[in-house]
Amino acid sequence: MLVVMRHDATPEEIQGVVDTMEEMGYEARPMPGKQRTAIGLVGNDGKVNADRLESLSGVMEVIHVSQPYKQVSREWREEPTVITLDNGTRIGGSEVVVMAGPCAVESEAQIMDVARRLAAAGATILRAGAFKPRTSPYAFQGLGEPGLRLLARAREETGMAIVTEAVDPESLDLVAEHADIIQIGARNMQNFSLLRRAGRSGKPILLKRGMAATVKDLLMSAEYILAEGNGQVILCERGVKGFDTHTRNLLDLTAIPVVKSLSHLPIIADPSHGTGLRAKVIPMARAAVAAGADGLMIEVHPDPERAMSDGAQSLFPDQFDTLMDQIGTIAQAIGRELAEPVAAAR
Amino acid sequence: MLVVMRHDATPEEIQGVVDTMEEMGYEARPMPGKQRTAIGLVGNDGKVNADRLESLSGVMEVIHVSQPYKQVSREWREEPTVITLDNGTRIGGSEVVVMAGPCAVESEAQIMDVARRLAAAGATILRAGAFKPRTSPYAFQGLGEPGLRLLARAREETGMAIVTEAVDPESLDLVAEHADIIQIGARNMQNFSLLRRAGRSGKPILLKRGMAATVKDLLMSAEYILAEGNGQVILCERGVKGFDTHTRNLLDLTAIPVVKSLSHLPIIADPSHGTGLRAKVIPMARAAVAAGADGLMIEVHPDPERAMSDGAQSLFPDQFDTLMDQIGTIAQAIGRELAEPVAAAR
Amino acid sequence: MLVVMRHDATPEEIQGVVDTMEEMGYEARPMPGKQRTAIGLVGNDGKVNADRLESLSGVMEVIHVSQPYKQVSREWREEPTVITLDNGTRIGGSEVVVMAGPCAVESEAQIMDVARRLAAAGATILRAGAFKPRTSPYAFQGLGEPGLRLLARAREETGMAIVTEAVDPESLDLVAEHADIIQIGARNMQNFSLLRRAGRSGKPILLKRGMAATVKDLLMSAEYILAEGNGQVILCERGVKGFDTHTRNLLDLTAIPVVKSLSHLPIIADPSHGTGLRAKVIPMARAAVAAGADGLMIEVHPDPERAMSDGAQSLFPDQFDTLMDQIGTIAQAIGRELAEPVAAAR
Amino acid sequence: MLVVMRHDATPEEIQGVVDTMEEMGYEARPMPGKQRTAIGLVGNDGKVNADRLESLSGVMEVIHVSQPYKQVSREWREEPTVITLDNGTRIGGSEVVVMAGPCAVESEAQIMDVARRLAAAGATILRAGAFKPRTSPYAFQGLGEPGLRLLARAREETGMAIVTEAVDPESLDLVAEHADIIQIGARNMQNFSLLRRAGRSGKPILLKRGMAATVKDLLMSAEYILAEGNGQVILCERGVKGFDTHTRNLLDLTAIPVVKSLSHLPIIADPSHGTGLRAKVIPMARAAVAAGADGLMIEVHPDPERAMSDGAQSLFPDQFDTLMDQIGTIAQAIGRELAEPVAAAR
Repeated sequence: MLVVMRHDATPEEIQGVVDTMEEMGYEARPMPGKQRTAIGLVGNDGKVNADRLESLSGVMEVIHVSQPYKQVSREWREEPTVITLDNGTRIGGSEVVVMAGPCAVESEAQIMDVARRLAAAGATILRAGAFKPRTSPYAFQGLGEPGLRLLARAREETGMAIVTEAVDPESLDLVAEHADIIQIGARNMQNFSLLRRAGRSGKPILLKRGMAATVKDLLMSAEYILAEGNGQVILCERGVKGFDTHTRNLLDLTAIPVVKSLSHLPIIADPSHGTGLRAKVIPMARAAVAAGADGLMIEVHPDPERAMSDGAQSLFPDQFDTLMDQIGTIAQAIGRELAEPVAAAR
Repeated sequence: MLVVMRHDATPEEIQGVVDTMEEMGYEARPMPGKQRTAIGLVGNDGKVNADRLESLSGVMEVIHVSQPYKQVSREWREEPTVITLDNGTRIGGSEVVVMAGPCAVESEAQIMDVARRLAAAGATILRAGAFKPRTSPYAFQGLGEPGLRLLARAREETGMAIVTEAVDPESLDLVAEHADIIQIGARNMQNFSLLRRAGRSGKPILLKRGMAATVKDLLMSAEYILAEGNGQVILCERGVKGFDTHTRNLLDLTAIPVVKSLSHLPIIADPSHGTGLRAKVIPMARAAVAAGADGLMIEVHPDPERAMSDGAQSLFPDQFDTLMDQIGTIAQAIGRELAEPVAAAR
Repeated sequence: MLVVMRHDATPEEIQGVVDTMEEMGYEARPMPGKQRTAIGLVGNDGKVNADRLESLSGVMEVIHVSQPYKQVSREWREEPTVITLDNGTRIGGSEVVVMAGPCAVESEAQIMDVARRLAAAGATILRAGAFKPRTSPYAFQGLGEPGLRLLARAREETGMAIVTEAVDPESLDLVAEHADIIQIGARNMQNFSLLRRAGRSGKPILLKRGMAATVKDLLMSAEYILAEGNGQVILCERGVKGFDTHTRNLLDLTAIPVVKSLSHLPIIADPSHGTGLRAKVIPMARAAVAAGADGLMIEVHPDPERAMSDGAQSLFPDQFDTLMDQIGTIAQAIGRELAEPVAAAR
Repeated sequence: MLVVMRHDATPEEIQGVVDTMEEMGYEARPMPGKQRTAIGLVGNDGKVNADRLESLSGVMEVIHVSQPYKQVSREWREEPTVITLDNGTRIGGSEVVVMAGPCAVESEAQIMDVARRLAAAGATILRAGAFKPRTSPYAFQGLGEPGLRLLARAREETGMAIVTEAVDPESLDLVAEHADIIQIGARNMQNFSLLRRAGRSGKPILLKRGMAATVKDLLMSAEYILAEGNGQVILCERGVKGFDTHTRNLLDLTAIPVVKSLSHLPIIADPSHGTGLRAKVIPMARAAVAAGADGLMIEVHPDPERAMSDGAQSLFPDQFDTLMDQIGTIAQAIGRELAEPVAAAR
């Protein structure tokens, strides 16, 4: 940690910072410069109260050299985290994993139909919401627990694993019971209470990046889950808030190599929410794999024109087939491969 | 609602949109143009499934003319909402209300000391967190329920009303029991489950704008609370995510007149979180009042250099005195006045 | 300057940084820490090639402690810069200065009419574009030199000073000949060649903040002008790019106190471009004065409904009168006053 | 064009809009709705003065259905623009083109050395700045015309084409004389005067997206060049301003398919400036090709640790070799191929 003094800081103010550092139990190392003095704090154990230093008289700013996250960092654990699901799908290894499905479970016919097609195309994880966080209180909010049971039936029939979102304590407990991976959505990325409960569930967690979250914020939220003893966290880039309304969000694919260098956790991309436009999903899905994503989350609907939500960003099933071909080739170009399709349960 | 067709849309595609609109129970009004055709939807009752139209073949985009929120809008209720607290403070009328206090309740001595000073300076609402949503799982998370009891004691002694944050169902019920206003923080602005519970609490709710939330998003979140039958909502601008790191957030004061024109709900500003820097709090607090804010939320700490959180953005008590003088004059310049100080309980 | 090493940097890599710093003529001060080593560079004279250090093996990042700007900074010059125009208007002192007028000079009748009304209302500087930078090549681009002559005639009659925009070398020379202040628009803020020419003109320069410019970027651009020996620079906040489309731009009023703490240059605000909406101009103009702006730039049109550009953000003349009253009171509330009206030439 | 009225607009105000539209020579088609009335303008020839309509009494907003750009749009010209350089390189066809080189020309030895290596690796266009727009007036600003002559010599020896930046009228004329493609940098994207001059040069133009520019803004700037009769424009995505400081800019790869759907012009990506970090350049270059970019612009320096600018984002020559291999495979995966290497001049 480095405390940078104002250029007009007095010797007394500089000494005040030195004294405070020592009072806090650290060593202070002043570095006088032509323009200003900076004071290094030596022995930072990650518990320094920076607010206290920042509020001292004469201080311009406090610069953090150590990172605030621990267990999620590459420095804590060098080798990548690999998560293995019950159906054999591995996330975080050399395989590129595809999670696909409709925005929401709407009916048994809908979810069974699409699940069969997706499994046949090679997807190994089925995504679909039973609890939907909607901007409007008057919009369709999902089928709830009956939706979870339909997902379980689809898993039974196709062998695909299930990922679905939890939005509060009650739904989290239900999702933990029925699904293979619990999704925490972008709007709940800093719902710390929910993160802790997710940590205690013992299940793999898919944590989506919030729309105003830096990569550091995302890692700090993952740290909440690891701090509860649950290391099975998959991060997901799904677009941040941008100023151009041509797309719903701004998909920040550079976050993928940035996360890879800072953390051992796997990271996937969701180009469906990341762009909000069907015609942009395929190129951006390809780009995510080329950038090094460990997987994709893609919305596919058997009849997008009649979807109850997010129809405009859902692929048609035959578009999905094409996509699987293209990303298979791209994965090979960078020394990876698509995850092996699941053997159907019957 | 207006459906804009691609320039190369065929007559069949245009007819497909017309047919779908009629199948959905609305009237379609095509508007051929030189560059493209647009089709107006007449009879919009706010329940149109835009996703379905957006996903039709030949459609370029769907433009919303009606707003998606209802009860929060000026069109629903013309006169401003005024909320009256037990201690007589009114929010949303001609008075400018000041909520002040430390970031967190730290101890009885701390909260009593600062409450007395703030009441003497004319603040009528005491703010301080008992449950703190912190980016790091290892940071101080608040005193919890004992903190709420200390706040109640400060109210008893000073006559100030209490506003404090709830972060999950449990803390919301506790806060509802002890406080006068329940605060929902920026990170939980789209925690829709918590918003519904806040709506059912029957208490006044202070809803802070999320860091990536548009004004429309903020109003939609407030709609969740009103939809549960609770009309006592106070909005709060506290800065959005910006690209310049000179301040912690980018305080968007224009949101104040924008909200005033769209909604009947009161809106206040929090320049402490909105800037993150003590020296910027006073000018921006003045600016918020000049822009038409119904109140301010300000962090003041008796000893900022020893605060357990947010010390660098907390005012010293004597700075707060100066601020109260300045905003009193500015309120008068625009035909308003500071809220009357409370008569101390003893 | 502080070079932060990766946590896994080898002793050889650390030594490599130390050696390079010394080879560059500076002193190196390594600071070993628990998580990583940082190396302070002592003796920074502002000419360090940070790119070279940043690209060394084992380096995570380079942190700048000194600021890259010089002559614009408070550290270079403590007292505020005050610019005095020929008509006696002073910018940067205790007075709050108002620059007002239509977006563009359209005709003699239009500019004379509005200039008389504005002078009567107390504005001392007339703004209006003769060269308009328009997003579309097919939009009205301004009257050019004849427009400048009309402005000069308005000055002659009303005593107001003239500020108008230059967009390239030719127009800059013409504007320098006719106007009192040369405006460099937001889109040219990093047109360094134009900035240098503005610096050599010897005239006061109004430099508008670019839509993606940090305060530091703005100050660096001003530095280009000062580096040519021209210290008469007025900065202008006019909104940055934001994600909410409720307003055209996001007016960042916090930039005003931020600039005041970093630089001795005056700073004004332009709420007309900063919001793009007539109804938001008045509250945000008041807010800018309350935040400490040295002046305002406001669009006023005698007949906004027939304006050739920016009609929707132009005030009606009687709205401007009200505004002048309100900001006069707010200026007094913070110990300032409106600039004295000019004595009309005849 | 659609004029949306306020919900409380009077019949007189609605009639006022209708009358104005008709006075302007268009047909008005009112669409009464439950919440508000909207009025369609029929016969839009792209010359409607929207500001005039927007400023009418009772108007809430004006919605544009037609796009403001013409010649750059797919609706103007269906087939893609393909630009063929003197050395045979084609941009905008099925080939993926690589432009590579150091940030700046520093010396004959440097530019010759790197040009030979790049040509050998298969790049067909050499990039390097002779005129550098630098944020600081005190930073290295390029060699100027002597730099251009060195580039011409490198072309002579290697057969590569030359792309280099122009920053003002003088440098534009010089660059037009020496280079194959004139680059207009991000900071000059809305320097409309320079764009017009670039249009009149008759040379292919590489136009970089500004840091706060929407795709629409970028296309409007390109329109300035086409409006002068020069259709040889190559667009370039190089990152926009984002809120996360982990990367220098936020590379918006979705802009590639967005541009492809709106315009016939080729678009390339610059992951070097788009990320600012050497380790992120390779994955993002691969991602850009996977997203459909017509080419890449990559910084490569023979000795990045001693580069005079942008060393930290320049690849080492052997990293560039690896990159060429990977993008070759990815291009094939999506049915494209790398541009054929040039036959060296001798």
